[in-house]
Amino acid sequence: MSEFHGTAIVNIGLLATPEGDRARSGKAQDELKKQRNAYLLSENGVITGIGTGMPPQKLLSKYLVIDAMGSLVTPGLVDAHTHLVFAGWRANELRLKTAGKSYLDILASGGGILSTVKDTRAAEESDLFDKAKEALDNMLALGTTACEAKSGYGLNLKDELKQLRVMKRLNEEHPADIVPTLMAAHAIPPEFAGNRRGYIDLIVNEIIPSAAQEGLAEFCDVFCEEGVFTVDESEEILLAGQRAGLMSKIHADEIRAIGGSELAGKIGAVSAEHLIAMKDSGIEALKSGGSIACLLPGTSLCLGKPYARARDLIASGVPVAVASDFNPGSCPGYSLQLCMNLASWQYRMTPEEVLCAVTLNAAAAVNRAKSIGSLEIGKQADAVIWDAEDLDFLCYRFGSNLARIIIKKGSLIK
Amino acid sequence: MSEFHGTAIVNIGLLATPEGDRARSGKAQDELKKQRNAYLLSENGVITGIGTGMPPQKLLSKYLVIDAMGSLVTPGLVDAHTHLVFAGWRANELRLKTAGKSYLDILASGGGILSTVKDTRAAEESDLFDKAKEALDNMLALGTTACEAKSGYGLNLKDELKQLRVMKRLNEEHPADIVPTLMAAHAIPPEFAGNRRGYIDLIVNEIIPSAAQEGLAEFCDVFCEEGVFTVDESEEILLAGQRAGLMSKIHADEIRAIGGSELAGKIGAVSAEHLIAMKDSGIEALKSGGSIACLLPGTSLCLGKPYARARDLIASGVPVAVASDFNPGSCPGYSLQLCMNLASWQYRMTPEEVLCAVTLNAAAAVNRAKSIGSLEIGKQADAVIWDAEDLDFLCYRFGSNLARIIIKKGSLIK
Repeated sequence: MSEFHGTAIVNIGLLATPEGDRARSGKAQDELKKQRNAYLLSENGVITGIGTGMPPQKLLSKYLVIDAMGSLVTPGLVDAHTHLVFAGWRANELRLKTAGKSYLDILASGGGILSTVKDTRAAEESDLFDKAKEALDNMLALGTTACEAKSGYGLNLKDELKQLRVMKRLNEEHPADIVPTLMAAHAIPPEFAGNRRGYIDLIVNEIIPSAAQEGLAEFCDVFCEEGVFTVDESEEILLAGQRAGLMSKIHADEIRAIGGSELAGKIGAVSAEHLIAMKDSGIEALKSGGSIACLLPGTSLCLGKPYARARDLIASGVPVAVASDFNPGSCPGYSLQLCMNLASWQYRMTPEEVLCAVTLNAAAAVNRAKSIGSLEIGKQADAVIWDAEDLDFLCYRFGSNLARIIIKKGSLIK
Repeated sequence: MSEFHGTAIVNIGLLATPEGDRARSGKAQDELKKQRNAYLLSENGVITGIGTGMPPQKLLSKYLVIDAMGSLVTPGLVDAHTHLVFAGWRANELRLKTAGKSYLDILASGGGILSTVKDTRAAEESDLFDKAKEALDNMLALGTTACEAKSGYGLNLKDELKQLRVMKRLNEEHPADIVPTLMAAHAIPPEFAGNRRGYIDLIVNEIIPSAAQEGLAEFCDVFCEEGVFTVDESEEILLAGQRAGLMSKIHADEIRAIGGSELAGKIGAVSAEHLIAMKDSGIEALKSGGSIACLLPGTSLCLGKPYARARDLIASGVPVAVASDFNPGSCPGYSLQLCMNLASWQYRMTPEEVLCAVTLNAAAAVNRAKSIGSLEIGKQADAVIWDAEDLDFLCYRFGSNLARIIIKKGSLIK
């Protein structure tokens, strides 16, 4: 970019973006700014102008000018929930699931999350970096310009910090933005089997303080679920995170509604994730606590589970974000485009609600709504030029990558 | 290719292929040939050798040598059911569906299939060709080296033949193979509203004979469904097709089981499609008639419908093929990779059954099992080198294009 004053995207058929620097809810989630025949200017990675028609020719001569050819342009997509950094895959579990084996059967045969923990502990940090970078490259090519990433396959001080350091390095070296979340409370590691108190103490007294002190995490997340962490344990861990300066996220109501979403509202979690089995009391709690519902339709698809109650959440005024949940077990895919299709078909969200869910509301769910998630002057110039004329088409066509050109901080990525 | 004697794919980590020149059923659908550390040779577009280790160096010096880098190689995918040739899209219907409008509501507001008929009739043949070619290019990049294509958006003599001529030209000019199906019996066109007999007479007396005489179609297909064509009408049309030399396919039991699959078995249809609502009697009929069940999981996904009873079909000895159903209404996507994921998650088919369903059984469903659908000496050299080590991974990872290199008739496509 050094030879240009900035970047201009011209000949935008439709510029569609939510507006503002906080999550949108209710009817406001359905309201986008839509500008036809638009252009967008950026300098030093920041949006400096948006207008209709063509910008002054004199200005353009100093800019890298990208012709959108009449296509749809939106903010870069933000993936608010991923488990990006891990070793190995678990492709072998597919045929176990197909044959009807339960999660517990698979766990008992050495599979499941603890298999990824074993691989991740054994992996070199540089190998974890290479693998995550490859995924991030592909995510970026699919239009995801920022993503959250969780630890949770280390489950001890050393290996949780190893995962978080991979995220730090990705943030420094990769064009995409990474928001790091500490999720030591993803499972009880085998060495603490029968001693859950011991592991929770380790999280609260060592892992959280270390991660926070080293500036390696912004959020703390807990898998609050029957057989994993109880509501009381989740509260203890998340409050310890808050005391250390880590904002709260919570995996809640994925399988059983044991009170995770109610806890989210009570402690002011920034977001609650999954919510498949959520009760009305959970919706009310999120609403009163100002938490964002982060829904993960790819996981419902992969596991053949029900889809979360997106329409009820929107009707109740809870902001809805939609994310991939990319991980090697329950959702080995990171296409937010497919999540947008699923949000249309299964959540019955409008194209406008869907776009907001994967841009501004996702940015808010990772505490980045002031800098990304919408195309507005002063925000980062993160944009996607789509092989689509409008939002309807983007949510309707599926199974192909419709992201034609990716702009990240004003730079042409592909 | 003129400068080479042929093409060699070497360093194949795992070559996986069904074997034979007819559809496989029951346990045989689960049995693949799997060869590790393999190579594959072709000359003039035909497979001439398969072996283990490296072929003789002297031979290779005259070949284009493609290194599979230890990856999985399978036959090129065959999409046995598409509505490839049409004008326009129907993205605008997505938000109607999301808002709860029924198919009939959409039809009444000028949408649905008759909207595509209107656009397709109005389109120039060259525009239809360009649009279909673009889709076919993308399908090929996703690993689909052959596909069936149906007419059925013309619904009169002139425009049905126009669609079929586009397929003929694609077959001549595009690397992918196209198998043309006449589906004039896709809907009753508006000018025959109230006169279904008149339209059926037109199909039987004019459209079928013309398409057959001009050599433009190999199959005849009918949408046998409540409110579309009855079982008796379907039988009349398909038998007229058979008399003209067109093999039978039938859209059966998609919404209601009115007897379409039973008809398929009775008249020896090569395949019956959809089968979502199929009864046991339909399974028995397909089995006794030797028909292939062509299942379309993408349509179930897009419409939020149940998934067909794949396991019951396999258990009963009916060969199962899996196809995309690409069309602008109920399934605007053509990724067979995603169909493979869905067949794993929803049909609970094994990776081996899935591969057979999108290669050999699909080839058999379009009467091409003697020339494509498996990697065997004497068959076309249509192969995909995947970003995957094994079949499990191919069925497990989703949302990204895992097809790294496509070989069609021995030529490197990408």
